[in-house]
Amino acid sequence: MDRVYNFSPGPSQLALPVLEKAQKDLLVYGDTGMSVMEMSHRSKMYTDIYDRTVADLKDLMAIPEDYEAVFLQGGATQQFSAVPLNLMVNQKADYIDSGNFAHLAAEEGKRYGEVTVVASSREDNYTYVPDVKKIKFSPDADYLHITQNNTIYGTRFTELPQSAAPLVCDASSMILSEVMDVSKYGAIYAGAQKNIGPSGLCVLIVRKDLLGKAMKICPKLLNWQVQVEKGSMYNTPNTWGIYVAGLTFQWLKEQGGVEAMEKINIEKAAMLYDFLDNSRLFRPTAQKEYRSRMNVTFVTGDADKDAAFVKAAAGAGLVNLKGHRTVGGMRASIYNAMPVEGVKKLVAFMKDFEAHNA
Amino acid sequence: MDRVYNFSPGPSQLALPVLEKAQKDLLVYGDTGMSVMEMSHRSKMYTDIYDRTVADLKDLMAIPEDYEAVFLQGGATQQFSAVPLNLMVNQKADYIDSGNFAHLAAEEGKRYGEVTVVASSREDNYTYVPDVKKIKFSPDADYLHITQNNTIYGTRFTELPQSAAPLVCDASSMILSEVMDVSKYGAIYAGAQKNIGPSGLCVLIVRKDLLGKAMKICPKLLNWQVQVEKGSMYNTPNTWGIYVAGLTFQWLKEQGGVEAMEKINIEKAAMLYDFLDNSRLFRPTAQKEYRSRMNVTFVTGDADKDAAFVKAAAGAGLVNLKGHRTVGGMRASIYNAMPVEGVKKLVAFMKDFEAHNA
Repeated sequence: MDRVYNFSPGPSQLALPVLEKAQKDLLVYGDTGMSVMEMSHRSKMYTDIYDRTVADLKDLMAIPEDYEAVFLQGGATQQFSAVPLNLMVNQKADYIDSGNFAHLAAEEGKRYGEVTVVASSREDNYTYVPDVKKIKFSPDADYLHITQNNTIYGTRFTELPQSAAPLVCDASSMILSEVMDVSKYGAIYAGAQKNIGPSGLCVLIVRKDLLGKAMKICPKLLNWQVQVEKGSMYNTPNTWGIYVAGLTFQWLKEQGGVEAMEKINIEKAAMLYDFLDNSRLFRPTAQKEYRSRMNVTFVTGDADKDAAFVKAAAGAGLVNLKGHRTVGGMRASIYNAMPVEGVKKLVAFMKDFEAHNA
Repeated sequence: MDRVYNFSPGPSQLALPVLEKAQKDLLVYGDTGMSVMEMSHRSKMYTDIYDRTVADLKDLMAIPEDYEAVFLQGGATQQFSAVPLNLMVNQKADYIDSGNFAHLAAEEGKRYGEVTVVASSREDNYTYVPDVKKIKFSPDADYLHITQNNTIYGTRFTELPQSAAPLVCDASSMILSEVMDVSKYGAIYAGAQKNIGPSGLCVLIVRKDLLGKAMKICPKLLNWQVQVEKGSMYNTPNTWGIYVAGLTFQWLKEQGGVEAMEKINIEKAAMLYDFLDNSRLFRPTAQKEYRSRMNVTFVTGDADKDAAFVKAAAGAGLVNLKGHRTVGGMRASIYNAMPVEGVKKLVAFMKDFEAHNA
């Protein structure tokens, strides 16, 4: 059986060299006599893997000295709770509602304090990101929360909002796909299963001065200070997930790092959008200015044709192109691990389908 | 490089057929064209794996109809918070303090209500489990919490306490190693990295009538009702961890299930304890009546000899035998995946070491 091109929004395709390395070493890693899955998280053989993984992440993202980086469990969703539990000192926070996950994050924030949704594109089914220049922020918010790329709707922030409060960012579907100036953020978190590795893992990057403010009711494992002090190992972390993330980071460095990936990602997205803008059958759903480079959403306008396309594409080895039910149509998620070749094949297939169905 | 016998307390040795299957299918699983790590958790190919895994667990443990089983993240430690957040309706709970993890669970319980430590062996460095017959339970406790096997000290409950409150059990280091009558418990939780699979995963088995009582401050992902309603998939679970757990469950069924494993585990533990009870060099540290079948703790009484033994054993391919710092000496963790052959080799090595060092 050949491998397919997998356009899933997450968990999603991993780089083939990453999988090949994981497979090769699965029974015995180096001279350890055991699988990475069998290593004590406190053994030198494993802390070596961990330390290298954190160092590579810091290197790839040019994380400044006054930030910490840790690997947590519970995905980004658990951080929807952890963010207010760690930062809501005055129990007030601003949220920009630019998509379903942004909305869920704000809803969870309300559990712990006063949430102000300072801007929202919800009424327009999130086809754009609110104009950050026009937003009035709360003067006393503990933080401002954004979801920088909206996986379901295929939109992204093209400019960061300028609030006085620390900017907290869910970067799940765009981390490591473009250069981020970490110093502009108070905290960045990201579920691993899109651009990093397997699911069950979440990266947290946080400015040191924001630590140590957690509410008393904050569960110990959700307390960022605890996790940072123990280097992700207050308890046993997702050791396999961190290991595969580390393999991905090494692969990214071999590709030339985030700057090189960003160029390729712009190229991949442009190939799809250029075709869509000129298609007689398909049209993109996100507003042009806010188009995501990671998740490209499009429709034919005819649900039957959409379904026929998704089915035919799967038959040709281009799988998981069905859009989210709230948008309908199709979505091609083209994270770092999706090669240019995969996008080329998809565009060629769309052209062919168009020729027969327009 | 040969594989070693790994006596790590966790993450720990996995069954070789499980690793071999995971390795074989790592690039392409069946006819899916992708790795399990790349599958959408909502795809049929993955929910088939998930459903089979849950069904096998229910089968192996004979989980009654009025219980639910889900796979969570955060290990057992996250449940130290989730237990009170889900069950402390009257904000009162009883805990038996029989080891370090039992102690930490009780400490975390105090964050959310009144904790009564109804019995403790802490003053005696946990060399035994408190006699459950002599315990006076609180009449209005929301639950009674125990840690059924104490990994660090090598002790286990040989009898369950009889409280009117639902019994909540951390079964991390003994789940699936012996027959448990699930109907005796309100909830059982267990970190996966000892008897189930890779770390970053926690099994929760809970009686249905105990659901729906969570505190308002309970983070959404820690809410058992939410996790049960969504079949572990309110957000993306640890898909790879669940898959490997499923391979372990299939392997356990091939071995004859939990009853067969219990027999083998009794045999393995007896081989070690019989030798220790008659040794001129080594002596076991746990009180005889409460000896664990999973973690066998022992010392020579001479720290230098202990260190020399651990080092020499590692040289012979018997690794991770160093005891926890609070007990010192040695600990052989012999979970389900440790074959009888591994324990035989260990005993033979100990005999030889004794002959040269007693």
